[in-house]
Amino acid sequence: MRISKLLMPTLREDPSDAEVISHKLLVRAGLIQKTAVGIYNYLPFGYRVIRKVENIIRAEMNRAGAQEVLLPAVVPAELWRESGRWAKYGKELLRFKDRKEAEYCLGPTHEEVITALARAFVHSYKQLPLNLYQIQTKFRDELRPRFGLMRGREFIMKDAYSFHATQESLDAEYQNMRETYCRIFAACGLQYKVVQADSGNIGGSVSQEFMVLAENGEDALLACPQCAYSANVEAAVSAPPDSRIVAAAQEAVREVSTPDKKTIEEVSVFLKTPPENLLKTLVYYYKVNEKENHIVVLLRGCDQLNEVKLKNYLQADLILPAEDSAVVKITGVEPGFCGPVGLKNVRIIADELVKTISSGVTGANKKDTHLLNVAPGRDFELKETADLRLAQAGEKCPHCGAPLQAIRGIEVGHIFKLGTKYSEAMQAVYLDQNGAAKPFIMGCYGIGVGRTAAAAVEQHFDANGIVWPPALAPYHCVVIPANVQESAQMITAEKIYQELLAAGVEVLLDDREERIGVKLKDMELIGISSRVVIGKALAEGKVEFRLRSSADNELLPADSAAQTILARLQA
Amino acid sequence: MRISKLLMPTLREDPSDAEVISHKLLVRAGLIQKTAVGIYNYLPFGYRVIRKVENIIRAEMNRAGAQEVLLPAVVPAELWRESGRWAKYGKELLRFKDRKEAEYCLGPTHEEVITALARAFVHSYKQLPLNLYQIQTKFRDELRPRFGLMRGREFIMKDAYSFHATQESLDAEYQNMRETYCRIFAACGLQYKVVQADSGNIGGSVSQEFMVLAENGEDALLACPQCAYSANVEAAVSAPPDSRIVAAAQEAVREVSTPDKKTIEEVSVFLKTPPENLLKTLVYYYKVNEKENHIVVLLRGCDQLNEVKLKNYLQADLILPAEDSAVVKITGVEPGFCGPVGLKNVRIIADELVKTISSGVTGANKKDTHLLNVAPGRDFELKETADLRLAQAGEKCPHCGAPLQAIRGIEVGHIFKLGTKYSEAMQAVYLDQNGAAKPFIMGCYGIGVGRTAAAAVEQHFDANGIVWPPALAPYHCVVIPANVQESAQMITAEKIYQELLAAGVEVLLDDREERIGVKLKDMELIGISSRVVIGKALAEGKVEFRLRSSADNELLPADSAAQTILARLQA
Repeated sequence: MRISKLLMPTLREDPSDAEVISHKLLVRAGLIQKTAVGIYNYLPFGYRVIRKVENIIRAEMNRAGAQEVLLPAVVPAELWRESGRWAKYGKELLRFKDRKEAEYCLGPTHEEVITALARAFVHSYKQLPLNLYQIQTKFRDELRPRFGLMRGREFIMKDAYSFHATQESLDAEYQNMRETYCRIFAACGLQYKVVQADSGNIGGSVSQEFMVLAENGEDALLACPQCAYSANVEAAVSAPPDSRIVAAAQEAVREVSTPDKKTIEEVSVFLKTPPENLLKTLVYYYKVNEKENHIVVLLRGCDQLNEVKLKNYLQADLILPAEDSAVVKITGVEPGFCGPVGLKNVRIIADELVKTISSGVTGANKKDTHLLNVAPGRDFELKETADLRLAQAGEKCPHCGAPLQAIRGIEVGHIFKLGTKYSEAMQAVYLDQNGAAKPFIMGCYGIGVGRTAAAAVEQHFDANGIVWPPALAPYHCVVIPANVQESAQMITAEKIYQELLAAGVEVLLDDREERIGVKLKDMELIGISSRVVIGKALAEGKVEFRLRSSADNELLPADSAAQTILARLQA
Repeated sequence: MRISKLLMPTLREDPSDAEVISHKLLVRAGLIQKTAVGIYNYLPFGYRVIRKVENIIRAEMNRAGAQEVLLPAVVPAELWRESGRWAKYGKELLRFKDRKEAEYCLGPTHEEVITALARAFVHSYKQLPLNLYQIQTKFRDELRPRFGLMRGREFIMKDAYSFHATQESLDAEYQNMRETYCRIFAACGLQYKVVQADSGNIGGSVSQEFMVLAENGEDALLACPQCAYSANVEAAVSAPPDSRIVAAAQEAVREVSTPDKKTIEEVSVFLKTPPENLLKTLVYYYKVNEKENHIVVLLRGCDQLNEVKLKNYLQADLILPAEDSAVVKITGVEPGFCGPVGLKNVRIIADELVKTISSGVTGANKKDTHLLNVAPGRDFELKETADLRLAQAGEKCPHCGAPLQAIRGIEVGHIFKLGTKYSEAMQAVYLDQNGAAKPFIMGCYGIGVGRTAAAAVEQHFDANGIVWPPALAPYHCVVIPANVQESAQMITAEKIYQELLAAGVEVLLDDREERIGVKLKDMELIGISSRVVIGKALAEGKVEFRLRSSADNELLPADSAAQTILARLQA
C-alpha cells in the first residue's frame, strides 16, 4: 500500500491519560483512538494487528477441533437469572432495558448463552464432547478502565466452552486447550508462562492463566526457578518453612500492658518477640447465598492474608474486612488488641502455620493489652485451619522446595475446569449410556485478543517505538525513497515495492512528501518489521536495509534488493 | 470434518414464529438459533456462511482501496448529540447509562463515530479522499423484529464511510463503491438490482439500494423492462400520462349535495366523475427542527400519496396524517368533505398532476357537500406543486416511457451521498489548498451481512431445503456411506473424503449411525453443494454423485471419484 493513501495518524506526544508503555505506543503509533473511557476505535494499522491475532487463534482453535460460532452481544436477563449470576455479578455487568422494558445485559462472558445452546441441541452422550468458540466484542463496565487495550470496557475476546460426559473427557480437552494456547502464544511470538490461577467470577475448581512476561505486567506471579511451578500470587502456595522443634508453652497465659501498640511491628518491637510468634487476628464480613456473617481469621504475624484464598475457602460471594463497630461487637475491643482467647459465638479459622506457634503473643480483647504464652489448642480451640496466607518470594516452592521468585506478567489467556456449575443451575442435561439425565461437565477457555496485542507491545519495544513480533506486525517491510522528488530514487523504490508486493510481502511504499527523518521515526514508532531506504547510496547502486529489531544497516545492491529482503524476512 | 464431531442440529419442524422461507430454513437447517426476540446465535454451519459473506466483502473492499477499522458497539451520547440525532432518532436507538450515569447507545450505524475520527486525524486536503470500513455487530431496537436474520435487532453489518474535498471526488468514490457492491453480490452468487432509493434516517441527497430479487422480498420495487431505470416504490417516479387537451372550466363552481359520500370511490360513482377528475384533499401534521405545523396535500383522486416524498419535500423529521380534530379546525369539516377552495391560513401543496385537472370535483368544507367545476388556479391558489404521488406499475418509465413493472426485492446494500450533513453538524473540517477550513464531503455505504445470507436463501431454495450458491455454502461436498457398519463402504468413503480434503475441498464425512434417508434429508436441508453416496453400487465399483442444484445422480467409478468431483465442483 502507498502510505499517502492510508490513514496512519502518528502522534508526537504521549496521550495524557496513558500510564503504561503499550497504551502510550498504541495511541502514538496511530493504532487505536479513544472514543470514551475504556472504549477505543481500532484504526487501520491497529486493526491489522488485531486480525492477525484473531487469525492465529482461529487457525489453532480449528486445528484443535473446536467449532466457531457467534453468540449475541446483547443477552437477555432471564439466562443470567437461571445461572444465578444476575444477582451475584456486580456493576461490571452493564444492565439495561429495551423499548419494551425487557431486561438485558451486555455479555461480559457467555457461559449462560452457550449452556442454553447446548441444552437446546445436545441431548445424548453420543454428541459429546463438544467445544464451541467465538471471537467477539464484549463489554465489562470496569470501575477503573485503564491502560488502553489492557483493561478496557469494550474489548475483543476469544471465548470457548466445552461440554463433556466424563471428568476424563474434560481433563483431556483442558489439556488440549492448554497445548493449543501454548501454540497460539508461541505463534504470536510472545514469551509467556502458564501459571496456577484463581477462578474468580467464572467459577469451577481448576484454572490456569497464560501470562505474557513483562516488567510492568499488572499481575504479580511467583515462579520456581527449578521446577515448572508458577502461580498468580492470588493462588500461589508455598511450602511451610522447615519445622523447628519448639517446646510447647509451659507457662500459663498472662496479660501484658501494651499501650498504643497496635500493629504487628509495634508489638513485636515492644515485646521483643519475632513476628512469626505473633498471632494476627482479623475480623472479616462475608456473604454466602445472600446470608451475611462474620469470621475471625488468624495468621502468623509475619504472614499476610490472601483474601482470594479466604473467599474461596468460605465459598463466599463477597468478603470484606469488618467495620470497626463489628470488630468491637465481636471481640469487645477495637482492632489492634483482638485475639482468639475467650472469643465466643464466632467462627474462627486459622492459617495452617498458626499451628507452628507454641507460645505466642496475641491481643487480649482488652484495650492496650496483649497476652503472652498463648498456645493454640490449649488456650483457644483450633477447629478450622487452611492455607490462607499470601505466598511470598523467597518462600519454598511447594513442589521442589527451591525459593520462589517474584515476576510480573500480563494475563492474556485463562482456562477453567468449570465442572457442572452452570449446567446444574440451568438444568442443562444429556442422557448417558443408561438413559439417565446428567448435567454437562464443562470447561471454558478465554483469550483477550486486544490485550494480547497490547502485551506484545509491553514485551517488545525500544526507545523509538514498537518492535512487533513479525507475526503481529501490521506490515513487514516499508520501502522509503529518501526524497520523492528524486526520480531515480522513486523509480527504484517503486520497482522494489512492486517486486516485494508480487512476492506476497505485506509491504508499504512511503510516498509521502516528508523529510526522511520523519518517515523513519514513523516507521520505527509503528514497528514495521523492516525498512529499505533508497537514498544517496543509490549513486553506487546500493540501498540501505534494516530490520526493526536491529541497529545495523545493510547495504544491498538495488537490483537484487527485493530477493535479499525476502530472504531476510523469512529467516 | 466428520459430522459425528460437529454440532449440526437440524430440526424436523418449522419454527412456530417463522413467516418467511429463509427464517424457516435457517433455523431448521441448524444454522441459527433464537436467543431473544430479534437476537440470534450463529451456529457452526451458519457462521461459516456468514464468514464467507464477510470475506467476499473484505476482499472487494480492500481491492477498492478502502481501509478496515473497527469502531465501538457502545457509543457515547455526546457524539450523537453533536450530530443532532440523539434527539431525532426514535426508540430504535437503544439508549442506556453506565455505572457512572454517563449516557451511551448501542450503535445502529456509525456516522458520528467515524466523523469524529476523521475530525481528529484528517486535517489537510492532502489526506483526502479516504474510505474507512468495518464489519461489525450492530443493534437496532426494532419495534417488530421478524423474519429471522432479515430484520433482527442485533445484526452484522459492513459499513463504510468516505471523506472528500470535492463533489467530484465523492461522485467517483460513490461510483467505485457501486461497482464494488456489484462485484460483491455477484461473487456471492446472487441475482440483484440496483435501484433508486430514499435516504431515510441516514440523510443525504442521492442513494441507491442493492436489491436481491425474491418473490417474498419485503420491498416493493418498480422496474422498467426496457431501460435501466428501477426504484424502490418509496422513491419511484413515473412520467405524467400523455396530456389530454381539456377545455378549461367554463362554468362557475357550484355546490352539490353528497350525503355520506366520503371516499373517492363513493363520490366518483355518485357523481359519475372519473377519479382522475377528483381532487383528493389530505391534511398532514409535520415537524421540522422541533417546530410543529400542518399542511394540506392535494392529489388526483386516482393517485396515492407517497409519504416519503412528502417528508423529503418538507425536510421534515416526522410527518403523520392529522388527527380528525385538526382537520376540522383547519377546514371546518370532518375528513371526506374537505377541499382547497376557500381555505385560509394553511400551507397547501399539490402533486404536479393536479394541474391537469381543468374542471374537477372536491369537498366543499361543508358536511355532505362537494363542489363541481373546480379549476385549480382559478378557484384556489396553487403556489406549491411537486411530485408527491406513489408511482404505480403500468405507469410510464420516467426515462423511456415503457410501462413500469412491479417486482419485489430484499435490500442487502445501500449507498448514499451524504454530503456535509454530519461534517457540518460536528464541525469536522479540513484545510483546503488555500488554507480555508471546509467540512468534509461524505459518502456512506452499507451491506447487511446476515441479511445477505438470508436473501441468498430466499432466492435459492427448493422443497427439500436450501440450495446455497457455492460461494456461500457451508461445505462443498459431503461423502455419505450408506451404512457405516459396512466396512467396504466405510473404507471407500474414507478414501474419497481424504482425497477431497487433500485437494482443498471443504468436505464432510457423514459418519453418523443414521439411516441413509435421514442423512440425505439433512444434507439437502442444509444445502451442501454436492454429495457422493457410497452404497450398493459399490459392488460394481461405483459411487453415486449429485449436485445439490440437480436432480440427477451420476454414477462414478469409485477409484477416480474424487478427481471427477473436483472437476464438477470447479465447473
